[in-house]
Amino acid sequence: MSPTLTSFVKGAQDSCFPIQNLPYGIFRPTPEQIPRPGVAIGDYVLDLSAVSRAGLFKGPLLHSSDCFLHPTLNQFMSLGRPAWKEARETIQKLLSVDDPTLQDNVDLEATVFVPMSQVKMELPAAIGDYTDFYSSKEHATNLGIMFRGKENALPVNWLHLPIGYHGRSSSIVVSGTDLVRPRGQTAPGKDGLPAYKASQLVDFELEMAVFVGPGNEMGSPVSVEDAHDQIFGFVLMNDWSARDLQKWEYVPLGPFLGKNFGTTISPWVVTMEALEPFICKAPEQDPAPLAYLQDSKRVTFDIPLKVALKPEGGKESVITQSNFKNLYWTVAQQIAHHTVNGCNLRPGDLLASGTISGPEEGSYGSMVELSWSGSREVKLENGGVRKFIEDGDEVIMTACCKGDGYCIGFGPCSGKILPPRPE
Amino acid sequence: MSPTLTSFVKGAQDSCFPIQNLPYGIFRPTPEQIPRPGVAIGDYVLDLSAVSRAGLFKGPLLHSSDCFLHPTLNQFMSLGRPAWKEARETIQKLLSVDDPTLQDNVDLEATVFVPMSQVKMELPAAIGDYTDFYSSKEHATNLGIMFRGKENALPVNWLHLPIGYHGRSSSIVVSGTDLVRPRGQTAPGKDGLPAYKASQLVDFELEMAVFVGPGNEMGSPVSVEDAHDQIFGFVLMNDWSARDLQKWEYVPLGPFLGKNFGTTISPWVVTMEALEPFICKAPEQDPAPLAYLQDSKRVTFDIPLKVALKPEGGKESVITQSNFKNLYWTVAQQIAHHTVNGCNLRPGDLLASGTISGPEEGSYGSMVELSWSGSREVKLENGGVRKFIEDGDEVIMTACCKGDGYCIGFGPCSGKILPPRPE
Ligand SMILES: [Ca+2]
Ligand SMILES: [Ca+2]
Ligand SMILES: [Mg+2]
Ligand SMILES: [Mg+2]
Ligand code: NI
Repeated sequence: MSPTLTSFVKGAQDSCFPIQNLPYGIFRPTPEQIPRPGVAIGDYVLDLSAVSRAGLFKGPLLHSSDCFLHPTLNQFMSLGRPAWKEARETIQKLLSVDDPTLQDNVDLEATVFVPMSQVKMELPAAIGDYTDFYSSKEHATNLGIMFRGKENALPVNWLHLPIGYHGRSSSIVVSGTDLVRPRGQTAPGKDGLPAYKASQLVDFELEMAVFVGPGNEMGSPVSVEDAHDQIFGFVLMNDWSARDLQKWEYVPLGPFLGKNFGTTISPWVVTMEALEPFICKAPEQDPAPLAYLQDSKRVTFDIPLKVALKPEGGKESVITQSNFKNLYWTVAQQIAHHTVNGCNLRPGDLLASGTISGPEEGSYGSMVELSWSGSREVKLENGGVRKFIEDGDEVIMTACCKGDGYCIGFGPCSGKILPPRPE
Repeated sequence: MSPTLTSFVKGAQDSCFPIQNLPYGIFRPTPEQIPRPGVAIGDYVLDLSAVSRAGLFKGPLLHSSDCFLHPTLNQFMSLGRPAWKEARETIQKLLSVDDPTLQDNVDLEATVFVPMSQVKMELPAAIGDYTDFYSSKEHATNLGIMFRGKENALPVNWLHLPIGYHGRSSSIVVSGTDLVRPRGQTAPGKDGLPAYKASQLVDFELEMAVFVGPGNEMGSPVSVEDAHDQIFGFVLMNDWSARDLQKWEYVPLGPFLGKNFGTTISPWVVTMEALEPFICKAPEQDPAPLAYLQDSKRVTFDIPLKVALKPEGGKESVITQSNFKNLYWTVAQQIAHHTVNGCNLRPGDLLASGTISGPEEGSYGSMVELSWSGSREVKLENGGVRKFIEDGDEVIMTACCKGDGYCIGFGPCSGKILPPRPE
């Protein structure tokens, strides 16, 4: 793939979605139409069901596949890297300034392109299982200091394995979906009794998540070396958290209602192929992990991340900037660990990174860290301040990898917290 | 429903599956045929897709529904109690000794009945999310004493809320599926380093689980009063656990690889209607829970449970006997708690009870309790002993509610642990 490759779609090369990106998503051209796969290109969505029906997927793996006629990407994800590469080559050629197929055929062009402003995005896949890891050393250390003190900040197992837990699939929503402030049970106060109330400590967690490709059979672990081929692509993720509910419930079996009221992901899945130019070294690991977690390549991705907070009717303030490359455990290690006991992954499963905090205060990935457990104020533009998320606040995550003459963007992962429902 | 209601199917009334039971499952008549809904009656399965195609569901809610032509029960589960009652009435009439429709029509009879010995059972539903609770006070107390000492046996939150966590849907398997002994990481020994090895402490957990019916919208909690109508029915469940993996990984985010290598459920979903005669009072709760968890009815079910262990080539030994009614938190309370923050349940979701231990030693629901963390031996028939599950051991859970002249059985929930795969 050459950085000078250019699309005929106007404005595409200056957008987050140039011909070098080509992220996959599921969209409805109008709210009434059925969901279908598409690819983002500039301000347009290329309708892959229309491309497929027009017989334009001519490669050996896809010419007789119906994967783009499904209402989710699970089928396409299950096909594996050779099919993903073939699809990318076909789409890149069709969108290229050098190819006449679409740009010189007015009828076809009108059929396959839909203005992005008009579409309704859906979740990219039916997510069978969603796992959330905890792979930022900075985040785990920060929370450890706040909850257990500086001496025992990192849990004793943290440096030996990528800690993870199962999250809730049903409440994963696509960017732009409003969430109601959750109610629930909080720890006893001075009267010794737990309370039932609306959460006072709603937080975001800046994460990224990968969609699993082919998956593995139950009983057959995926090695670190083979893990790469299980990664279809990345989205941004906000693991909304209610810290007061979480604190009271999480011992001994982990987070539950403090997390499962909602998790937001960005709609466009940016593929490994698009992210290849941004591969970089992952941090050194000391102590060396057990052999099954040792990754000779130890590569990760340089993906700059940004979180903005927009109060109701107000202006966006950037409140933190981090980077995916900060993570201690790589996705390959997470996958090897997840499956070492024989646990099976299925196409379309979602594996989230855990909160991505950087080393500096301005790079922390959650309000509980930015406000240091509510002990200091996070300043907004126009004089506002926050310790946690207030009603009407919209949290907007974005990411953009700067390439040679183009950028690989993710599109926003945003969500607004609405007041609790009247009872 | 009268206990003197009788089916014309030979032997049905003396079996676990009399006309008073009518549990739903998904089966293949032969391994090559596609899965379809069925009802167990004696030694037969009534093929509901065939009954439906024959136009025998004539009630207002089901006559034009295709729910029995699906390969899972999710659609039927989503329809709610009025449709479930209508289906039960139709099926009960068709199977009754007084009704000629099936018994006097040789062709139809041959089409709709399949010998149970010949069918292959599948999971009853596509399970979107699986939650495991921790609702036995005896089990939580026993584990607490073993891990934290007698003083702080119950976690401080335990009496205030039904603790639960998200489990793994992908590795839920139907009874009869063998499982490979998991490998994984265990806590540091004397050398201070964690080890990678096959689990030495594989355990079962005796549980029951409910399939969710219609579910709820995100943001709209289900009240304790309305929770009853969310319960489609019950299965037996073995939440296989690798105690050594679990112990090293579970702080701070809960069980993960110690659980997700496999979870076994029985194939037949016994409905609330079949269990109605076995309703009984749930234990008193002290302290009284918060209002959102208060259940004026506080009913549960008297379901006697049994676990047998069968060594490779050996004989079954009953190793524990418990009862569902032992649980402190009811299913209605679990559902109200699960959704109080707005978390949505979907049709076909699985909610498990947690290990069901009774007050006496012979009623504990796991090996770690029966062997008191490996400190004593569990005796088998023929002189064998066990502390945990060994390779080749089959664990067989059964349940049978004794009614007035009939019994409501669940059919076995069984699984065998195979040696770890060679590497
Ligand atoms: Ca998280
Ligand atoms: Ca359990
Ligand atoms: Mg969440
Ligand atoms: Mg399990
Ligand atoms: Ni029986």
